[in-house]
Amino acid sequence: MRETITVNQDVLAARRAAADRFRTRMGDCGTLVVQLLSSPGAGKTTLLEATAQRLSQRWKVAILVGDLATDRDAQRLAPYAPTVQITTGGTCHLELPLIENAYAQLPPDRYDFLFVEDVGNLVCPASHDVGQHLRVIVQSVTEGDDKAGKYPKAFRTAQALVISKIDLLPHVPFMVDAAIEDAQAIQPHLEVFSVCALDHKGIAPWCRYLEKQREQMLHPVHAQPMTSAASHS
Amino acid sequence: MRETITVNQDVLAARRAAADRFRTRMGDCGTLVVQLLSSPGAGKTTLLEATAQRLSQRWKVAILVGDLATDRDAQRLAPYAPTVQITTGGTCHLELPLIENAYAQLPPDRYDFLFVEDVGNLVCPASHDVGQHLRVIVQSVTEGDDKAGKYPKAFRTAQALVISKIDLLPHVPFMVDAAIEDAQAIQPHLEVFSVCALDHKGIAPWCRYLEKQREQMLHPVHAQPMTSAASHS
Repeated sequence: MRETITVNQDVLAARRAAADRFRTRMGDCGTLVVQLLSSPGAGKTTLLEATAQRLSQRWKVAILVGDLATDRDAQRLAPYAPTVQITTGGTCHLELPLIENAYAQLPPDRYDFLFVEDVGNLVCPASHDVGQHLRVIVQSVTEGDDKAGKYPKAFRTAQALVISKIDLLPHVPFMVDAAIEDAQAIQPHLEVFSVCALDHKGIAPWCRYLEKQREQMLHPVHAQPMTSAASHS
Repeated sequence: MRETITVNQDVLAARRAAADRFRTRMGDCGTLVVQLLSSPGAGKTTLLEATAQRLSQRWKVAILVGDLATDRDAQRLAPYAPTVQITTGGTCHLELPLIENAYAQLPPDRYDFLFVEDVGNLVCPASHDVGQHLRVIVQSVTEGDDKAGKYPKAFRTAQALVISKIDLLPHVPFMVDAAIEDAQAIQPHLEVFSVCALDHKGIAPWCRYLEKQREQMLHPVHAQPMTSAASHS
């Protein structure tokens, strides 16, 4: 008896479909999923501390945070929102099954915003759709203004760029205009925000943007098709 | 006719052997191979500018520099030493065949120091032996002092840590002692240097360390077994 086993199934298509299902399921619950992606130490966690502190005055916020090791970030974020630490054990990025598993560990509730802080890495996470509605790059002014051209996929697949640690601008060789030009040459529709999360500077307009994105997800009149944009890679 | 094809060869063993051959070949030529590994924007290229400028007064220096895209780093380094840009096109780390290919593109010469600036990524490059004698982590004070615990493999497989951008210490929440303690808890033998490469502060002792490591490679009396230490991962 002969049996034909088809092995060349499109694994990536199955992953994209699973991410789309998660995205739709979250959207149907009114939850905007925001993935944060950056180099190690660009300030994702500090940005999330300030963001969760502000947003949770009006909205239900939850956070999933990925690291190779330790639960340091979850300990920092727990005072501001329910947080689950995902420890990858060495893997350089988060993937959807880790997100789904961590999401199931959150206190059961209907959240307005679910933040996913990916592993600090400007390369590998850019290739993985974790079911987000928005992908946001956090770039610190101390990293230099030449990063977009050198890490193009992360920027090309993002909807927003948060330039962080702007209090350090007087002390570092970073041209804000050059950084934005470099980034928008790769992704012309990138929305750009400048913040110093430590003293909450710039956090209000950034949070208004997030609220507006959620509003557009719930009532997509005049809205851009976020789902397809978020899943491009 | 039956034929048995063995497919479970140890691919990693073959890679380790190839890296050891490259390391030995370089060592036999008097070339110390120094791999630099860090987050994007931690200051590897600025450190190399200052290092090559100083070392090339006495020694022959060459540089291989890896990025996903652009030849920006090679353009910056070319004034100081023969430099070949390796553009990975999206891959998150360098591997030995890329190094060997780029090395062959350098002007034929006998170099004393070969620097390999890996892709900016504190995760994936840590798993790849590129035939280096020394692995050095560059950690900027702006990244926070909690990085070693969160990226343990990079630190565990390194011989030295360069803390960079120390001119920014007055402006950032970074405790030097805490960062060193965190790093040495993972790798007790880590040599630590503090630099501000922009104004060449701390570059002299860092270069003396490199010269001493090369001397020990050439005359290994009293020296630690660098080859085996460098290939641990």
